[in-house]
Amino acid sequence: MNLSHIEHIGIAVKSLKEAIPFYEEVLGLKCYNVEEVVEQQVKTAFFMVGRTKIELLEPTGADSTVARFIEKRGEGVHHVAFAVEGLQPSLDELAGKGVQLLDRTPRRGAEGLQIAFLHPKSTLGVLTELCEQGTKLTI
Amino acid sequence: MNLSHIEHIGIAVKSLKEAIPFYEEVLGLKCYNVEEVVEQQVKTAFFMVGRTKIELLEPTGADSTVARFIEKRGEGVHHVAFAVEGLQPSLDELAGKGVQLLDRTPRRGAEGLQIAFLHPKSTLGVLTELCEQGTKLTI
Repeated sequence: MNLSHIEHIGIAVKSLKEAIPFYEEVLGLKCYNVEEVVEQQVKTAFFMVGRTKIELLEPTGADSTVARFIEKRGEGVHHVAFAVEGLQPSLDELAGKGVQLLDRTPRRGAEGLQIAFLHPKSTLGVLTELCEQGTKLTI
Repeated sequence: MNLSHIEHIGIAVKSLKEAIPFYEEVLGLKCYNVEEVVEQQVKTAFFMVGRTKIELLEPTGADSTVARFIEKRGEGVHHVAFAVEGLQPSLDELAGKGVQLLDRTPRRGAEGLQIAFLHPKSTLGVLTELCEQGTKLTI
């Protein structure tokens, strides 16, 4: 498996309206995109720092995974996403090594990425995402 | 404040002996350094992915902050560290903006970095570290 860099860090926040000014005015980063991912019940805001994005996640539904995360643990780091070359072969490799996958095949995430999550039980407590930019479906 | 990239992600683990093989054999990263930071009661293992390090943290004392973190929340992401140009001026700027600092002045961290932590109460739940490589002390 070839992980090239950390594509983004997903951070659960209660309110983008409160969080965006903190990242912009205090940390000096610039929010370049706000996007809703309806099927995951989140509104996301993106900041770039080096090659890595900070992805803030505000839940839009009370029963969403991000809402439950905040309820249980408070605001904070929700997941870590690695950019990988060859997402499907990487998932196959991980499955072969006994890693529990939350997505057996890639699905569409924010910003047009192909993504898949690994179960934190298999990744030492870190909800881990693999993602690939502009993956074309193989026939 | 000028954050250039994510310098590292600190991940609390119970055992480096179990965690290092996961990062090497499953995720395909290479551990290039293991180092004990006595004053923080942790043993650390480093992996590079792009410009960012994964810093695994195994507690060496039962009353250390990392041990307490694991006891309370389980293994997982412990902190996020940004590389900054001008660490002391950045801390001064943050203090002026009302951010609660755990370190008012830089101290020495692993790998010879100058580091300072910000309180997660001021950073939307993310224990945040700023660090600078090879900072010379100004007289």
